[in-house]
Amino acid sequence: MHDAGTLLLSLFLIFTTAKVAAELFEWMRQPGIAGEILAGVLLGPGVLKLVEPNELLTAVAQIGVLFLLFRVGLEVKASELIRVGPTATLVAVLGVLVPFTGGWAVLAYTGAARIESLFVGAAMVATSVGITARVLAERKLLQERASRVILAAAVIDDVLGLLILAIVSGLSKGQINYLELGGTALLAIGFMFLVVRFGARATGHVIPLLEKRLHASELQFHLALVLLLGLSLLAQYAGVAAIIGAFLAGMTLSETVSVRVHVLSAGVSEFLTPFFLAGIGLNLDISVFAKQNTVILALVILAVAIISKMIGCGLGAWKLGRSDMFRIGAGMVPRGEVGMVVAQIGASFGVISKDLFAVVVFMAVATTMVAPALLNIAWRSNGKPAASSVLP
Amino acid sequence: MHDAGTLLLSLFLIFTTAKVAAELFEWMRQPGIAGEILAGVLLGPGVLKLVEPNELLTAVAQIGVLFLLFRVGLEVKASELIRVGPTATLVAVLGVLVPFTGGWAVLAYTGAARIESLFVGAAMVATSVGITARVLAERKLLQERASRVILAAAVIDDVLGLLILAIVSGLSKGQINYLELGGTALLAIGFMFLVVRFGARATGHVIPLLEKRLHASELQFHLALVLLLGLSLLAQYAGVAAIIGAFLAGMTLSETVSVRVHVLSAGVSEFLTPFFLAGIGLNLDISVFAKQNTVILALVILAVAIISKMIGCGLGAWKLGRSDMFRIGAGMVPRGEVGMVVAQIGASFGVISKDLFAVVVFMAVATTMVAPALLNIAWRSNGKPAASSVLP
Repeated sequence: MHDAGTLLLSLFLIFTTAKVAAELFEWMRQPGIAGEILAGVLLGPGVLKLVEPNELLTAVAQIGVLFLLFRVGLEVKASELIRVGPTATLVAVLGVLVPFTGGWAVLAYTGAARIESLFVGAAMVATSVGITARVLAERKLLQERASRVILAAAVIDDVLGLLILAIVSGLSKGQINYLELGGTALLAIGFMFLVVRFGARATGHVIPLLEKRLHASELQFHLALVLLLGLSLLAQYAGVAAIIGAFLAGMTLSETVSVRVHVLSAGVSEFLTPFFLAGIGLNLDISVFAKQNTVILALVILAVAIISKMIGCGLGAWKLGRSDMFRIGAGMVPRGEVGMVVAQIGASFGVISKDLFAVVVFMAVATTMVAPALLNIAWRSNGKPAASSVLP
Repeated sequence: MHDAGTLLLSLFLIFTTAKVAAELFEWMRQPGIAGEILAGVLLGPGVLKLVEPNELLTAVAQIGVLFLLFRVGLEVKASELIRVGPTATLVAVLGVLVPFTGGWAVLAYTGAARIESLFVGAAMVATSVGITARVLAERKLLQERASRVILAAAVIDDVLGLLILAIVSGLSKGQINYLELGGTALLAIGFMFLVVRFGARATGHVIPLLEKRLHASELQFHLALVLLLGLSLLAQYAGVAAIIGAFLAGMTLSETVSVRVHVLSAGVSEFLTPFFLAGIGLNLDISVFAKQNTVILALVILAVAIISKMIGCGLGAWKLGRSDMFRIGAGMVPRGEVGMVVAQIGASFGVISKDLFAVVVFMAVATTMVAPALLNIAWRSNGKPAASSVLP
């Protein structure tokens, strides 16, 4: 019972602080999302020490980001994602190569061990599509070409990140199993291909059929939830992130389910998203600011992380013109929880020092906080107002 | 990351199995809720061993039942609860005294220790209003007089249960601190009185005021969530169950918030309620069926639990006539998670044996599974069809 009380207190503190911070940020004409992340930093072990990051909060945050991506998926048709496929592939590939090289080069220059440099490079590769998706959805920009490219590139990026992490992890253990690597790639790509290519058609057949036979109330929503949880799980088994499965589940249903399913899903994501956002901030370790050298390294890494991703992804979208290049580059900047996971794996192998771990987490949090502002600038250049609105 | 995968698998298995079981039960003209509880028994350690009850699932279930009660609260006006106050008080008091005496008497007859008999009596007192609330809401019966009495009595019952538990716990430690007991009672009653009496008026003033000043999207829902989490937390600090706070939060908002808030809340509760229901079943320990003596004791305790609650609560509602007496008695039968918590406290004090613990958990699960069917019978006697429908 004590734990339940603590959880409830944490939920109350995080939700309330995040929403107050978001309101304050909006009032200062800053992105509310950055405020919600900052709320996590404030409440966390670094500053007020009111909330301890723990397994329960992590679980709540993870369920939250699943619903966030599911809801975004509901707004996207598979055909639209396939159409931007070639551009998105180029964006993803260059958006992986440039930051990886950048991160590796900075660390190598400081004289770090080879494997440490490679791990930091791998952490720079990660893209956390949740933040960008939230901004685009809130501003009703999901139907724009640049948004489609970002979402498709994020899906491909996830597979590439998986492979790079597998290679770097293999190197840290002294050997790479190429057969296993090929199997991993095949499984991940096969899973995505099957869902993107046939998912919408399958649900388009099966759901109306089930609706004729079953009569439970809220049946469509329950079926949607089964697909959401099932595809997230399968994605994880296929080696890619659960959120990619959640996104694909939403996309698969985008042409089948009613508006009511959108609103019911919105209820869950509105409740849980603040825990995902603040959860990113909760993990920031401010010990990074204790030594001057570490501060400098952190700032350099942050700058390289932002610039390299924008250049890499931007170059990949060369054909779409300068303003879409900027938008796509900005949309791929946040490293969020994905960058942290890579750093954690490196730390668990004992190949990343404690200081460097804090630097990478700082980079992940800071890129995530900067991205909404970058996206606002990128889309403002079109002359569109930064209206705040929501999904149905 | 391993834990996240396990959690996702558990969530998928529980949600899917619960919904399939509910559908099967409805098809057999049995209450779907009983099916969802049975799904938990099936998946749990007793049968298929696919899902291990753990802290994460408990947390998800607890958040789920908060939203379930919140949603029920949204359908109830404070004034309607106050109007049935005197009857509800009588229902609650007799619904506590008769089962407590019944449980104590059975155990005393078997020659159990005094403190053990008292603890079983205390576990028989508990009422889990979540199940009844779900049935009444699904069948759109929340506006009926008997439903009001059940909800009000459940609130009062919670305070009485708290006091009995405090007394029994004190006895097991060898002393009762009457001053502390008085303080506990005063705090719990004071909290409820303030919220029921002034809550609706306060939110009716404050929410429109905030809506004029703030412009965040889904503001009403966010404010509702802050109140839900805040009052659940305060309820816990005041010594009563968090779900009572959640119910009162909903009631406080019932005349203020828009239909959209109802639907968004429904999204969360539709997603999470199966984990609450199956979670009850997950905890069933089938070792109770290993010894013949234990089986007999379990069946006797179950019978006494059902009959004593129906007689006690029914007598309290004497003035309302026979059919409402039956409905109110049936509605108070489920012991659910509340009965389990009392048994757990007894076990943690070392005053309840392992076998008896399993018997009490069996009683809690079985009363909960029987209640929806009892409610169906009780309301069918009115000639109303058992139509399955939902909240907005």
